[in-house]
Amino acid sequence: MTMDKKYLEEIQELRDETKPTHRATVQSLEDLIYKPISVLDHGFIRVIDYMGDDSAIVQAARVSYGKGTKQKTMDRGLINYLMRHRHSTPFEMCEIKFHVKLPIFVARQWIRHRTANVNEYSARYSIMDKEFYTPSRDHLACQSSINKQGRDDILQGEEAERVLMLLKRDAEQCYASYDEMLNEDAEGNKPDPSRDGLTRELARINLPVSFYTQWYWKIDLHNLFHFMSLRGDPHAQYEIRVYVDAMLEIVKNWVPFAYEAFMEHRFHGSNFSKSGLDVIKKLINGEHVSQETSGISAREWGELMGKLGKV
Amino acid sequence: MTMDKKYLEEIQELRDETKPTHRATVQSLEDLIYKPISVLDHGFIRVIDYMGDDSAIVQAARVSYGKGTKQKTMDRGLINYLMRHRHSTPFEMCEIKFHVKLPIFVARQWIRHRTANVNEYSARYSIMDKEFYTPSRDHLACQSSINKQGRDDILQGEEAERVLMLLKRDAEQCYASYDEMLNEDAEGNKPDPSRDGLTRELARINLPVSFYTQWYWKIDLHNLFHFMSLRGDPHAQYEIRVYVDAMLEIVKNWVPFAYEAFMEHRFHGSNFSKSGLDVIKKLINGEHVSQETSGISAREWGELMGKLGKV
Amino acid sequence: MTMDKKYLEEIQELRDETKPTHRATVQSLEDLIYKPISVLDHGFIRVIDYMGDDSAIVQAARVSYGKGTKQKTMDRGLINYLMRHRHSTPFEMCEIKFHVKLPIFVARQWIRHRTANVNEYSARYSIMDKEFYTPSRDHLACQSSINKQGRDDILQGEEAERVLMLLKRDAEQCYASYDEMLNEDAEGNKPDPSRDGLTRELARINLPVSFYTQWYWKIDLHNLFHFMSLRGDPHAQYEIRVYVDAMLEIVKNWVPFAYEAFMEHRFHGSNFSKSGLDVIKKLINGEHVSQETSGISAREWGELMGKLGKV
Amino acid sequence: MTMDKKYLEEIQELRDETKPTHRATVQSLEDLIYKPISVLDHGFIRVIDYMGDDSAIVQAARVSYGKGTKQKTMDRGLINYLMRHRHSTPFEMCEIKFHVKLPIFVARQWIRHRTANVNEYSARYSIMDKEFYTPSRDHLACQSSINKQGRDDILQGEEAERVLMLLKRDAEQCYASYDEMLNEDAEGNKPDPSRDGLTRELARINLPVSFYTQWYWKIDLHNLFHFMSLRGDPHAQYEIRVYVDAMLEIVKNWVPFAYEAFMEHRFHGSNFSKSGLDVIKKLINGEHVSQETSGISAREWGELMGKLGKV
Repeated sequence: MTMDKKYLEEIQELRDETKPTHRATVQSLEDLIYKPISVLDHGFIRVIDYMGDDSAIVQAARVSYGKGTKQKTMDRGLINYLMRHRHSTPFEMCEIKFHVKLPIFVARQWIRHRTANVNEYSARYSIMDKEFYTPSRDHLACQSSINKQGRDDILQGEEAERVLMLLKRDAEQCYASYDEMLNEDAEGNKPDPSRDGLTRELARINLPVSFYTQWYWKIDLHNLFHFMSLRGDPHAQYEIRVYVDAMLEIVKNWVPFAYEAFMEHRFHGSNFSKSGLDVIKKLINGEHVSQETSGISAREWGELMGKLGKV
Repeated sequence: MTMDKKYLEEIQELRDETKPTHRATVQSLEDLIYKPISVLDHGFIRVIDYMGDDSAIVQAARVSYGKGTKQKTMDRGLINYLMRHRHSTPFEMCEIKFHVKLPIFVARQWIRHRTANVNEYSARYSIMDKEFYTPSRDHLACQSSINKQGRDDILQGEEAERVLMLLKRDAEQCYASYDEMLNEDAEGNKPDPSRDGLTRELARINLPVSFYTQWYWKIDLHNLFHFMSLRGDPHAQYEIRVYVDAMLEIVKNWVPFAYEAFMEHRFHGSNFSKSGLDVIKKLINGEHVSQETSGISAREWGELMGKLGKV
Repeated sequence: MTMDKKYLEEIQELRDETKPTHRATVQSLEDLIYKPISVLDHGFIRVIDYMGDDSAIVQAARVSYGKGTKQKTMDRGLINYLMRHRHSTPFEMCEIKFHVKLPIFVARQWIRHRTANVNEYSARYSIMDKEFYTPSRDHLACQSSINKQGRDDILQGEEAERVLMLLKRDAEQCYASYDEMLNEDAEGNKPDPSRDGLTRELARINLPVSFYTQWYWKIDLHNLFHFMSLRGDPHAQYEIRVYVDAMLEIVKNWVPFAYEAFMEHRFHGSNFSKSGLDVIKKLINGEHVSQETSGISAREWGELMGKLGKV
Repeated sequence: MTMDKKYLEEIQELRDETKPTHRATVQSLEDLIYKPISVLDHGFIRVIDYMGDDSAIVQAARVSYGKGTKQKTMDRGLINYLMRHRHSTPFEMCEIKFHVKLPIFVARQWIRHRTANVNEYSARYSIMDKEFYTPSRDHLACQSSINKQGRDDILQGEEAERVLMLLKRDAEQCYASYDEMLNEDAEGNKPDPSRDGLTRELARINLPVSFYTQWYWKIDLHNLFHFMSLRGDPHAQYEIRVYVDAMLEIVKNWVPFAYEAFMEHRFHGSNFSKSGLDVIKKLINGEHVSQETSGISAREWGELMGKLGKV
């Protein structure tokens, strides 16, 4: 990621300012605030604001459970308990606001999470920058057949070259046409005074979904956990998972106890079906059990054995 | 409202603490934070935390509209424009968290607003305090017939006495039974060791909806405006409107430009139907127009004339 | 539950009517539609309308996954797959509308589920019936200490008699006061013409949360599953779990494949933490593992052993 | 819009099937159900299912207001009243499900409405068709300056030709590259057996936002009204307004009373600010009032006079 000097100065200006507050404050997140964290080739994520800390979760839960405690170790234990027993509302009492720059195709997956607030840069009103995503060589995966994994999955040699050339060539041509149709430079003047220029809301339809957009995105901690759980899953597309990686690091610095409980019970936790649990109980008792006698389909049996590390 | 000395000390402790932050900060709201504002006879509302300020609304909108400005007067103008044209998403970028103590029947209306986060004190786990709402004499309204207004609406003399006596007597008796059924004192001991005591989640079903509950309630500014618009309306019940009054004062101290735009365009704004607008145009042109020729029902005509100050 | 003959006739009238439709239709749910199913002493739940069937889930998922299949066994397999992998959006494509009569304290837990549509009977505008919930003798649980279970949990003999008497006495007295304060009979006349009568919105504050209210409640299948998963849990209060029991029976008749997948993967499924899964793997391998060496707290270890049937 | 014969047959098959139901049924919507209504050059919208009718709105509201009526004229009056007074919850009791084919840039505006259920065709799993939107000649608007309106707004002659050529050329080239990178034909075979083919989730990033996607979209009537109100506004982009036009026609056939009330009070209604209402009152009283004395900005004054037909 390279960022305009002008933007970096505006960020620095905000970081240089410090005001006193009576609110819950987290020093390790204050150290990160406003700073862009690079994601993909031109994207970033940065924290704009936050509300609450680990203790705010306990504080809200204490209204539910009566008098509580202020000791750190008890906070940690209570947060673990709340996460374990799916008491999600206290986690909603923390809120975070991000500024994210991301390719349109990633934004389209992201926006499916509805319990969040969004303000997106508008290509109806403003001119899009010439910035598009190109996968790095080691992420040029070929279409997988089921269970096909490993190094073969990455396109090699000439085919990789050709793909990168096509993506780059088409994106550049699309942007050149966009620019020509707009007929408007950075100062709002017409490079070709003999033409009117197409309206922005139509010119932009020529841009591929690899182009970057950006938005302000605000969400509470419970719904952020849900987002990270689904979009940080190995089945999610690589290009959204890298944003989750950056978020996990941010959350770790913000609410370390909640982060720890989330990683333990949800992100690295496993769900087993009724039949799956029956199989587990038999295996623990040393009984023989096979897919055929389990009542579980072959595909699901494979998933079950995978979770148990028996593949 | 009287508040336990213990609670007041905990509040003071939080107010005495000041930390530095890089976040958006509003001094006039910092002055209010944590302090309980009395509402009704035993209720209160207090700000626990907030995210953003007027400038944060503009900041989020600028992502939508491209480069913006940092001058106060332009912020004000843009916020007015956003409110006027129903661009609601930038207002979602501010968030506020309240601690509210309120009668159960008010809580039941309040909770109908779904786009908010809530943690309520649980009567399944904790023991309810003996605090219930009794209307003041000047709010003992009698059931109105349509269009019946004015001083007659308040119950007088003996009837008022009788109502207040009944409300107080029943609430006290219900609480006494609750206390007896629980058979549990503040230290968790059994006043009558020969009895088990009924489970809390059942004993509480004996309490009237006039009893106070409390919760943490967190909401974004756009949805708070919606809440205040509906629950601050003259048709809303008095006992919830007084909480809106307190919130309006808080919001005025938090985001003065957004508050001003809200009061101008929504809280004190008016909506007219297509037919109503036709009537207005004719009246402005000095044409004669009557309910009969307007195509509007008698009831709706009355509402229209009321809005135009012609009653 | 006893229901007014007038209401039963209105229900029968709706059931007698049959119209042709091109929409997805489920015969076994048509057999139930409109009929009240008794819950608790005076409550009920009844289906008012529904949208979609098992096949509608597959139909929506096929838009996501391209061309699909119409064979019943493949529908079943796909629905199982969707549930197993938390692909929740296709389940949102089914919708159901209920009319529920329930005690206010149950309604207060129920309404916490925000992704649903609600129209509640208004005690501001209408007069409440004299119907309140009284627990049956075998549900008069005493306050449990941790891990205290079994028959001792039910109040016995005189204490039980006393509790039932108190609940009944107070509810009746509160209603009598309500009735007196209203001073309004079923025809809208004043029994005591010398008095005005208190406004309904104030008189009702005297009623305990054991009184019945009713509402229309509409929800999509995914969120209904979430509701049933949390409120049908053994930790939920008995008085809401019985409504979930009735709903489960309804859902079984509506979308049998989705019901089956839900029961298998969620309702009777189990979630294990990262550490819990490590313990399971060791147990399966015949390794010795104890709470002390597991890194899990004593309380959580107890929960884990409980899930594995090792208590 | 041209549609595959195969799809038309599947639609006809569903339309040929008729089953009896006890549910609320609307004949004029049954006549439309499943049939695609053409929108833009390759898009469509079609009704897949619906729940409720005008009477269902009244039925739900009656729970709120006590006993109601079954006469059509009283239904109409009550629905008008509910719309006028922003009692939105009864409208949430109707639900409709659409299948929509729409350009990606329209889908990106559409999805901003969060209170709806969505299942989108997935370009991660399936291959996109070669279908993209090209504006018709009379919608090739040029970028407007403020207040610039009329015929000049449409690009003319050679410039129009050039824009259409560029849009078509780039879309075709992007699709050709997509097709080549995929290296997969309709039967799943590799046209060039010497190459692996890029994974679908990456190949699709080369497609412009003018390409068509499709989804199942389900929403309640209140939120549909909100959607239509915002996206049917003259300020909304033409390419989404045409979908609203089709929806309005559908809603008119589904819930005619609710449609009528919506058009009267919201779609063609107007909102006036406090200051705007003051101006209106003065104008009605024949007083002179000017922008300078009104306290309203020049821009807002222009909007106000526009609403009053005084431009």
